[in-house]
Amino acid sequence: MRFYDCSTAPSPRRTRILFAEKGIDVETVQVDLASGEQLGDEFRAINPRCTVPALQLDDGTVLSENLAIASYIEDTHPEPPLFGDGPIERAQVLEWNARAESEGLMAVAEVLRNSSKRMQNRALPGPLDLAQIPELAQRGRLRLDHFFRLLDERLDGREFLAIGSFSLADITAFVVVDFARWVKATPTPEQKHLAAWFERVGSRPSIQA
Amino acid sequence: MRFYDCSTAPSPRRTRILFAEKGIDVETVQVDLASGEQLGDEFRAINPRCTVPALQLDDGTVLSENLAIASYIEDTHPEPPLFGDGPIERAQVLEWNARAESEGLMAVAEVLRNSSKRMQNRALPGPLDLAQIPELAQRGRLRLDHFFRLLDERLDGREFLAIGSFSLADITAFVVVDFARWVKATPTPEQKHLAAWFERVGSRPSIQA
Repeated sequence: MRFYDCSTAPSPRRTRILFAEKGIDVETVQVDLASGEQLGDEFRAINPRCTVPALQLDDGTVLSENLAIASYIEDTHPEPPLFGDGPIERAQVLEWNARAESEGLMAVAEVLRNSSKRMQNRALPGPLDLAQIPELAQRGRLRLDHFFRLLDERLDGREFLAIGSFSLADITAFVVVDFARWVKATPTPEQKHLAAWFERVGSRPSIQA
Repeated sequence: MRFYDCSTAPSPRRTRILFAEKGIDVETVQVDLASGEQLGDEFRAINPRCTVPALQLDDGTVLSENLAIASYIEDTHPEPPLFGDGPIERAQVLEWNARAESEGLMAVAEVLRNSSKRMQNRALPGPLDLAQIPELAQRGRLRLDHFFRLLDERLDGREFLAIGSFSLADITAFVVVDFARWVKATPTPEQKHLAAWFERVGSRPSIQA
């Protein structure tokens, strides 16, 4: 396997934490997003989506979705389990992982990509150059506030987000909340359940990955 | 199990097709999205996201993500398999299912929700009222054109989208291409691989669900 990473970016960080939780030492290639290496011919030949993470398997298959990579790793390296135990837990992990992506990660990305001067015409990742939409940055902040409230409510009385044990959904949500600091968004002091969970997850050694 | 559906909407259609492929006859409750029933107290108590599909399991757990529902059904009703066979195929199904959602379904939804007069302040599903952003409707059309090109290229020489057999990814992508007609977007006459696949998938009895 070969892992295409960018050590400063949030999306491949999700995969790095996954590898660390599983204790997997993988051959890693850094792709320099700051200089646009992901849009060059060399990387495009590996992943035409021009995104990281990408995981090239030994048979040549390239996976470019965090969830697809996580599923492959879970199936081939089942311990410790990150998708829970049994059909209901697996479904809940997928539910909260998807919500952390669509309601959290997309919100932060909307703010950052539609307001940062360095991201002009890069309002979405991938091969299309798309102009920034300032209203989308504003909307992203509203959605992010809502996401923090959602997490705080969900974590009232719970140790972890999706199920009773640490799972893929915690990885995704943790990376989102940490990434939100890039756009100067943080939970409110009143969101104590969210804060306690963020500290709990943040103390895991894998989070340094 | 109880399935909360809206017979005219694309997202729960994905779940309906899944049930039909699996031969599952499920207790179904219609939620009238046109009159805003999903935002009322009664449905909100079941699914606070105010979205369909929602699947209430016998233990009371409510799943509100298509993928979470599909995973639960695959685990409890494995035949016929819709997530492929083995770790690599499962990963590829998840990869293309996610791409059909983020690059296809989101694009159609961006066009529709940011341009339809009936969807003012409903630019995203869920409990938040969000104003339309006309530039997002325009951007959605660009992304949708790109998605059609992507599908056509991917389907060159392939019978199905993710793997050698029909899978969850075909369900999602089919619903997206069909849903795109709501915004008068269709593949070009040159996209013959896409057209052949659309006809192939569209001839399955489950698609009438």
